[in-house]
Amino acid sequence: MAELDPRRVVAELKELRELTGDADGAQRIAWTSTWSESRQWLREKLAGVEGVEVERDEAGNLWATLRGASEKAVLIGGHMDSVPNGGWLDGCLNTLAGVETLRTLSGTDLPVTVRLVDWADEEGARFGRSLLGSSACSGALEVEEVRDLTDRDGVRLPDALEEHGVDLDRIGESNRQLRNAAAYLELHIEQGPVLERLDLPLGVVLGTFGVERHAVRFTGRHAHSGSTPMDVRRDAFIAAARSAVAFRDDAAARDDVRATTGFVNVSPAIVTAFNGLCESSLDQRALDADVLADMLAAAKRSAERLAAEEGCEVEWERIWRIEPRPFDATLIELADEAVTEVAGRSHRLPSGPLHDAAEMAPLMPTVMLFVRSLGGLSHTKDEDTPERDIELSVQALHRLAEKTVRWVADGTG
Amino acid sequence: MAELDPRRVVAELKELRELTGDADGAQRIAWTSTWSESRQWLREKLAGVEGVEVERDEAGNLWATLRGASEKAVLIGGHMDSVPNGGWLDGCLNTLAGVETLRTLSGTDLPVTVRLVDWADEEGARFGRSLLGSSACSGALEVEEVRDLTDRDGVRLPDALEEHGVDLDRIGESNRQLRNAAAYLELHIEQGPVLERLDLPLGVVLGTFGVERHAVRFTGRHAHSGSTPMDVRRDAFIAAARSAVAFRDDAAARDDVRATTGFVNVSPAIVTAFNGLCESSLDQRALDADVLADMLAAAKRSAERLAAEEGCEVEWERIWRIEPRPFDATLIELADEAVTEVAGRSHRLPSGPLHDAAEMAPLMPTVMLFVRSLGGLSHTKDEDTPERDIELSVQALHRLAEKTVRWVADGTG
Repeated sequence: MAELDPRRVVAELKELRELTGDADGAQRIAWTSTWSESRQWLREKLAGVEGVEVERDEAGNLWATLRGASEKAVLIGGHMDSVPNGGWLDGCLNTLAGVETLRTLSGTDLPVTVRLVDWADEEGARFGRSLLGSSACSGALEVEEVRDLTDRDGVRLPDALEEHGVDLDRIGESNRQLRNAAAYLELHIEQGPVLERLDLPLGVVLGTFGVERHAVRFTGRHAHSGSTPMDVRRDAFIAAARSAVAFRDDAAARDDVRATTGFVNVSPAIVTAFNGLCESSLDQRALDADVLADMLAAAKRSAERLAAEEGCEVEWERIWRIEPRPFDATLIELADEAVTEVAGRSHRLPSGPLHDAAEMAPLMPTVMLFVRSLGGLSHTKDEDTPERDIELSVQALHRLAEKTVRWVADGTG
Repeated sequence: MAELDPRRVVAELKELRELTGDADGAQRIAWTSTWSESRQWLREKLAGVEGVEVERDEAGNLWATLRGASEKAVLIGGHMDSVPNGGWLDGCLNTLAGVETLRTLSGTDLPVTVRLVDWADEEGARFGRSLLGSSACSGALEVEEVRDLTDRDGVRLPDALEEHGVDLDRIGESNRQLRNAAAYLELHIEQGPVLERLDLPLGVVLGTFGVERHAVRFTGRHAHSGSTPMDVRRDAFIAAARSAVAFRDDAAARDDVRATTGFVNVSPAIVTAFNGLCESSLDQRALDADVLADMLAAAKRSAERLAAEEGCEVEWERIWRIEPRPFDATLIELADEAVTEVAGRSHRLPSGPLHDAAEMAPLMPTVMLFVRSLGGLSHTKDEDTPERDIELSVQALHRLAEKTVRWVADGTG
């Protein structure tokens, strides 16, 4: 058993940055040699923790197990992989804070088992499929939907996995790792501005947003900017612009949801004509499934009405959707306690981005901790968090793990 | 002297279409062999009009002169050149209605001279500079601004002109053609929906709009669509969308002006982020210079206010501008008389598109007649006007020419 040493985690994060980053940021893209090197380095760190058994599952996820009296297991998750030119904290903070937690639990009288999992390919940076390892483990991954993915150089996903000893057709067998899992914990940088605005180092995550993502296509008829009076125009861009503002205003009037217009393509897109076509993306997010459904219905009504007012028509095409993944009420309480003990004050917030925790939430009680991100930045070398906050987050994860171990051991978990 | 025969003009338009069009429409692009063929065909038609002298000026404009007692000249303008895949009427209707007018005046006791001019390269389809021949003649053309223009194949404008016997450095000498010019008349298809909506075949043009054309650039800061709450966003697209609607609403509330958003470019233009940059074009048009200046000032105020409300900044960059070119009040009256005599009812309207008449308006009393366009279409093979309306337009131009000849002869013009 070791004393918790949050500064050691900061030092190890810097060591990892030296080893696997360059002037443009972190380069631990999953299924590359740099990622393998980071994994090898992680194994060396784990080798220094007495009693920890390390194994890799069929999906390439790395498990470090500290056996307790019961086989029931508390899981702590993270991911060593990064996006190209990524930050120094995204994913690896979770893993290394988990290693530090294992260090403090090693040699103690553990009533239940504690396992750290380093998920493979959370980012999906090379093949475009995020949460690969955790969704293989949860059973959500459809192998046939990823079999034909290729990277920029035309390398097929199954071949890249094979180079790293992973057989795509056996990837689902990693699910057996969850047989005795009783709870899942994850620490992550917020990647947003909420905690910074509240001047708080730590927060408790209520769940990951559900997402409704559509292409919204307005059709009018383009004509000459000089010869066509204003009152006879069927201007698809104006219909789209009014709708985008309506989508935004509706979201701004609700509690903690999102609505975002991303791409916007107009046609003919020339200075001497108004546009007969406008297609834009709408990404709506909410933690409550009914709220999300209501937002989508309201957006469709607004677009229909505004398109009609502009003499246009509107069509919707779904690009993607995912259900909200609310976290466990008891674990949220425990996390709140842990954060309050460490930082004096807590705050509950939803997670905008997805995380591996979203794959675990339907299967077992799950919760996440967020630590403040400076400027809300992530997926860039400018991603940062004050070292003092990183240290507090390591303390909070440790306390949350201890509370969760007791809760699972009490048989209430 | 011949009896006016409007049906002959329709027949000649069809003959020209056979000769210089294909399944995709008219192909009389200036400075090409098809355009030259159309010019040769026009010369043959003019050769059949007794007393007409034909010459080509230094800018490639073709002049057909019927001398009268006075050297003071009434000009009738048109252009044989078309856009690629153009319509069967744009430009050549003006020219052929002018030929028909010359036919009826030939052999009569003309108190003043009447001249038909077939302007070279009104459309600017090959080199991107419209009104080339008429602006060379008016003196507005800056030779150095067009010297380096090239077509899609890299051919330089001076070389293409030289192939057609035009020396770019002498192009301004065509100005001498205007020495005795006393009035300018032009018939054109409307290229808009106004007359069709009023169920009128003919209208009188009040002038060509002034244009203020700008790129409007909104700058905020992009961030993730999930992690960034609505109230902290600096969404450049929402600022641009609100501004585009404000520009449109302001124009719609004024009398017969235009405001058009054309191109719209957002960045990063991905589904998972709101946009930190949005650049769009704004094209504003009005017949009154003060109104146009006020529209621009109002748009800048709106954009400034809305950008601030969205936490963004806005910059304006002028792309192009042209002053309004109002036509002559007396000629507008005469044109109204001519149209009313022929069609029973007249209507006055501004011209959205530019025409060669805009180059003549600052130099001499000028007016245009519009004939109804079906569906407001032009610059497409679907451009059309009922044959009966074409015939009425030929009659109206003829009457207007006669009235203008008398007005100039009376010394009031």
